Amino acid sequence: MKILIIGGSGTIGQKVFTELDKKHEVLIAGRNSGDFRVDLTKEDSTNQLFEKTGELDACICTAGDAAWGDLQELKEEDFYVGIQSKMMGQINLVRIGQHHLNNYGSFTLTTGILSEDPVKGSIVPATVNNAIHGFVLGASRELKKGMRINAVSAGLVEDSVEHYSEYFPGHIPVTMDRVAAAYQKSVEGNMTGEIIRVY
Amino acid sequence: MKILIIGGSGTIGQKVFTELDKKHEVLIAGRNSGDFRVDLTKEDSTNQLFEKTGELDACICTAGDAAWGDLQELKEEDFYVGIQSKMMGQINLVRIGQHHLNNYGSFTLTTGILSEDPVKGSIVPATVNNAIHGFVLGASRELKKGMRINAVSAGLVEDSVEHYSEYFPGHIPVTMDRVAAAYQKSVEGNMTGEIIRVY
Repeated sequence: MKILIIGGSGTIGQKVFTELDKKHEVLIAGRNSGDFRVDLTKEDSTNQLFEKTGELDACICTAGDAAWGDLQELKEEDFYVGIQSKMMGQINLVRIGQHHLNNYGSFTLTTGILSEDPVKGSIVPATVNNAIHGFVLGASRELKKGMRINAVSAGLVEDSVEHYSEYFPGHIPVTMDRVAAAYQKSVEGNMTGEIIRVY
Repeated sequence: MKILIIGGSGTIGQKVFTELDKKHEVLIAGRNSGDFRVDLTKEDSTNQLFEKTGELDACICTAGDAAWGDLQELKEEDFYVGIQSKMMGQINLVRIGQHHLNNYGSFTLTTGILSEDPVKGSIVPATVNNAIHGFVLGASRELKKGMRINAVSAGLVEDSVEHYSEYFPGHIPVTMDRVAAAYQKSVEGNMTGEIIRVY
């Protein structure tokens, strides 16, 4: 398969690349590195990305930002950071990408455990991750030409423990192998409309 | 209790008003009618609303729009109709309202069955309704002063059958009594962080 990973240089994306690159042709897009540059918050940038990649069999997104903060302090614009990047960035990828994927192609988006088990200050990630869960279910019923869509929702991943474990008290880190396997399952399997939980 | 219903003149809001008005002081806000005018898509309008109502014990929202359309045709701005109204409109209500509610006050937001069982063309409602579900869970862990928050997610309601049943094939309508009871449960009960499903 010809596979594109947006965010393929990130903590999760690197591991997904290593796993899938064993058997497939894998291209990487990123904000600052990779085979292609893309800014997911700009629809034009996403349009240009798919014009450069040509037809694909799978599109994986492991990119997307969201602001953190307590509900008492967050401003409307803090929510919009997550809306424009992690939420609409990934939604636009599917909205535009559906016209560039081969028949039976797949989309695999990324959310995370904060969707179901938010920690202090993670209300924006909780909100936008759930938005993606709703989108994945809705899109699985709307996509044409046998296309599939899933999301991988991982817990705190091993490679992020050093920087983030203090924000996730009592969370048991998940191995990078399990996380990469979830993306492989979505790409090489036949499921659609699923949230693949790696907790 | 002193209760505010935003959207209190709508299909669901009217029934909630009738039920709660038996025992409480209930005020209505709406875009074009009610005791107060509010445009949920404008943060300033929501700010002004709470300055006019004074302190409240419960804030219910049964308002909020979202665009419909097939995934192949929807544009980015179609998603933003739902984001600005049903999603951020309700989120801003809580974000701002938390500073105006009395201790142990409650918020009750509105989503719907499309969050879990989308029909043709309902991917935007599916997306923004799930965003609200994530927000409700996150906010239930962040609100201070004993405040609570829940969402009511109803199926196709009886009073909407005439206009909307063709979009909901095979959906069994739910009675307005059951829907109104769900809001009563949220306001008068002690639950928080719950999605009260009326299917």
